[in-house]
Amino acid sequence: MFGMRLQAAMAEHGPVCVGIDPHDHLLDLWGLPHTAAGVREFSLRTVAELGGAVAAVKPQSAFYECYGSSGIAVLEETLAAAREAGLISVLDVKRGDIGSTMAAYARAYLSPESHLAADAITISPYLGFGALEPAFDLAQTHDRGVFVLALTSNPEGREVQHAHGAEGTPGFGTSVAGSIVAQVAARNATEAGARRSGTEDSAVTDGTAVTEGSGAVGAAAGLGRCGLVVGATIGTAAASLGFDPSACGGPILAPGVGAQGAGVAELVEVFGVGALTRNQILATTSRAVLGAGPDGVREAAKFLNDALREVG
Amino acid sequence: MFGMRLQAAMAEHGPVCVGIDPHDHLLDLWGLPHTAAGVREFSLRTVAELGGAVAAVKPQSAFYECYGSSGIAVLEETLAAAREAGLISVLDVKRGDIGSTMAAYARAYLSPESHLAADAITISPYLGFGALEPAFDLAQTHDRGVFVLALTSNPEGREVQHAHGAEGTPGFGTSVAGSIVAQVAARNATEAGARRSGTEDSAVTDGTAVTEGSGAVGAAAGLGRCGLVVGATIGTAAASLGFDPSACGGPILAPGVGAQGAGVAELVEVFGVGALTRNQILATTSRAVLGAGPDGVREAAKFLNDALREVG
Repeated sequence: MFGMRLQAAMAEHGPVCVGIDPHDHLLDLWGLPHTAAGVREFSLRTVAELGGAVAAVKPQSAFYECYGSSGIAVLEETLAAAREAGLISVLDVKRGDIGSTMAAYARAYLSPESHLAADAITISPYLGFGALEPAFDLAQTHDRGVFVLALTSNPEGREVQHAHGAEGTPGFGTSVAGSIVAQVAARNATEAGARRSGTEDSAVTDGTAVTEGSGAVGAAAGLGRCGLVVGATIGTAAASLGFDPSACGGPILAPGVGAQGAGVAELVEVFGVGALTRNQILATTSRAVLGAGPDGVREAAKFLNDALREVG
Repeated sequence: MFGMRLQAAMAEHGPVCVGIDPHDHLLDLWGLPHTAAGVREFSLRTVAELGGAVAAVKPQSAFYECYGSSGIAVLEETLAAAREAGLISVLDVKRGDIGSTMAAYARAYLSPESHLAADAITISPYLGFGALEPAFDLAQTHDRGVFVLALTSNPEGREVQHAHGAEGTPGFGTSVAGSIVAQVAARNATEAGARRSGTEDSAVTDGTAVTEGSGAVGAAAGLGRCGLVVGATIGTAAASLGFDPSACGGPILAPGVGAQGAGVAELVEVFGVGALTRNQILATTSRAVLGAGPDGVREAAKFLNDALREVG
């Protein structure tokens, strides 16, 4: 099961997930051209260096898309190389749409037949959590993961994520971000319940959401496949909004770790010690590791993994 | 200027924008295989049939992405063919991210050097309207358009789009969707003001938003480059939330027109007669036109354009 596989990989290597972000500044630092070939060299070298050193990598689709179909071919190679190297791939695409369009995105990134298939993807809920259903379904069919954008650290995000749910919507009485967390928790609890009763297909497709104690259930049964994106540097934002991201019962992708970003203290503030010790937090960084240059990547990743494991 | 170019094309052909959505059902109907080659045949034939018959086409990126890099190569060809055929291309990608990642998305789809460059793209504001700034900037630099997701017709969308803005955010006192509309209006008014005073660069980069009367200003000066996505079948939702999408001063992409969807009466209910007569509403359909099969596409598009022009 995806959540447990990820948890096991984090238990082995540590919580670090390296964002493969081949933007111009990093390509310059590595002495590589701003071309698809440069991005290819950067990506494949990064994957080769990180195999066996971290649990997961997170290629950022935008930096491949900006080279068109040649860039996407490099992304396909990068995902295949990560698989070969035993790295869990979280493809950062932040897709979000409805109906057959959302189903096509799910097929593109979660179906084993696709050349762009990753172990997990990020998705964006501006069209509502329920609109993302085709991605949850396909992730379940093919045992992959999804990370739903919830609460990010950029200040502009508050406009949407801190907004108070309107009456008659799932967010009523909480914030948009809180509503996403609650629905992720319900989804994980439903899947966990179905697994326990051994009737996965029927129980999940009947849509009954088990909402009580989902965080604890999820942790006890192993993490679910449905995760969150929550910034590592949000401080007390979730607490102020009245919810606990770690109650989602799934893994949490937390960008903003390392170098000038968050360390253990900041992660504990946002997620609590328990979330870290049960390997629920996938701490994501790019510059702190890739900024070390090709020869320093592996050491930098191991150093950060060690630093972030020193909890409590 | 993008907004005025689009407005002129709608004045010539009518408000219809055909969504190029090569999903399995339509490929079957056209007798084409579920492959990148099938999607290529579908897309290029559609563009060839529609040149001179409609103002714009809207390729849906998901249906190309699901064929990996081969699919993206077909999307590149489709965009080039649309350009050749004199069709305005609105690439439906719904991207949304922050910082250098958002800048990379903008470069991928709005920079003339990119093989994936379109005349306009759709973008998604879950990370906040302000996070999309790199797309607005690049669209201005290269005179292209952006359509920001605001209020969609799928019921799950209410959870986010109807939520009440929190204190201290731009949405305070309105809904998330209302906040997006107001910020699009401000952006268009700022650009229009800069154009009038002939000091485009300095006036826009100083970031001063001219908020008063932006709808009227935008309409008088021609539509701005910054548009909205608002469902054609939302009925009274915007009015109930207390805002008028047509006050945004830019074009509005309105999916859900034709066949079982919205007609003139529904468009008038949502946007008002004025918005239709000043060619502000880009009425989007896919099945109503492409469901007619390759030999019926052109006639179906013209028929729908005529039907939607019968206003008042």
